[in-house]
Amino acid sequence: MAPRRPSEESRARGPATPCHPLPPAAVHRLSQYLRCFKQLEAQGVRSVSSLQLARSFHLSAAQIRKDLSLLGELGTRGVGYDVSVLVRSLSETLGVDTEHRLLLVGVGNLGSALALSPVFQRPPFRIVALFDRDPAKVGRVVAGVPIEPMTALARSVAEKQIRLGIVTVPSRAAPSVCRLLAAAGIRGILNFAPVVIPPPSGCVIRTVDLGLQLEELTYLLLHAPSS
Amino acid sequence: MAPRRPSEESRARGPATPCHPLPPAAVHRLSQYLRCFKQLEAQGVRSVSSLQLARSFHLSAAQIRKDLSLLGELGTRGVGYDVSVLVRSLSETLGVDTEHRLLLVGVGNLGSALALSPVFQRPPFRIVALFDRDPAKVGRVVAGVPIEPMTALARSVAEKQIRLGIVTVPSRAAPSVCRLLAAAGIRGILNFAPVVIPPPSGCVIRTVDLGLQLEELTYLLLHAPSS
Repeated sequence: MAPRRPSEESRARGPATPCHPLPPAAVHRLSQYLRCFKQLEAQGVRSVSSLQLARSFHLSAAQIRKDLSLLGELGTRGVGYDVSVLVRSLSETLGVDTEHRLLLVGVGNLGSALALSPVFQRPPFRIVALFDRDPAKVGRVVAGVPIEPMTALARSVAEKQIRLGIVTVPSRAAPSVCRLLAAAGIRGILNFAPVVIPPPSGCVIRTVDLGLQLEELTYLLLHAPSS
Repeated sequence: MAPRRPSEESRARGPATPCHPLPPAAVHRLSQYLRCFKQLEAQGVRSVSSLQLARSFHLSAAQIRKDLSLLGELGTRGVGYDVSVLVRSLSETLGVDTEHRLLLVGVGNLGSALALSPVFQRPPFRIVALFDRDPAKVGRVVAGVPIEPMTALARSVAEKQIRLGIVTVPSRAAPSVCRLLAAAGIRGILNFAPVVIPPPSGCVIRTVDLGLQLEELTYLLLHAPSS
């Protein structure tokens, strides 16, 4: 299903990004490779083979070679992949070579915990605005950011040029909050409410649904060969 | 890639579950269907067509018919799917027709927020044990459950017959905590540390990685046709 391109074509194109969006599973793997290459770079490792990567990720070396060939990065036989070239190439492809400013709506237990998460304490993701409809929370500061009322959202998005949002509001409020964000100019939303939300025009919604993740585990408990 | 079975074979087998584990994406869709069917059941709806479902899920009706045929549920032309039959069949397939007792390790901001999440306030998932290595936290009660020391983990897993675990500890501690859980008898782990963990024998690990989810969004911002 993945719009895989032949290696030769990739080689000819150089380290350009594929024209068509890759399926989520492939993007997910590229993110994991980036994390690994960054870790290797920090350790001073300069090159790594697909076989070594395969051991780290429990993937086949062929899968890794296929994925990285999407970036035009084919490695050198007997030497492997150049770690810093791959960090740059993967960062560009994933769009994480620049800072992304995020907002978060719904500063309850989960919203606060996410705002304080280590992922936002370093580039490329930074939460620059928090919103809650509860007047009692407005003005409080979480992770260095003051909570604003919902009425300030549109102006804040425009002024701070925010394009990504995190939604941690109850399920019944999530669809309208997502529409509000899209109308304000938010282009991508990570939604934690366990509800399927019709994506507003020009906006992508990804839902992290704890119940669904757990059901995947119970399914595997029941059906995996080892059970 | 999905081990799809022909409809006729499914029909012959009746509403049995497929023998081979489905790929995660298919399981994910089944979970979403179950949520939708439960909602329809609560509303008193008795049957629904694949076309109506397709509109709710932004999937093709053909995809839905294919997925539900995996359960041997083919619907009736002009009538649709029997909602309560599907709720039962999907619940059985996903293993959520019985209660699952969970433990959670790492009762920090995120761990506390997850323990208090609505998903654990109703069947089938119930957190029955909390663990933290910080002696200052031991004895505190979160979501009605007292925090225990790590040394009590193995006994608690055995006594309470816990099979699923949630890991919300820092990245550097996550691999050893997952090994500890597997050794105690935990079969499925939902890990929130942004690190790739080699699955211990007999144990499945699913990682919910905020950074990876956000990179999927930044990738789409950069590459989606609408950008």
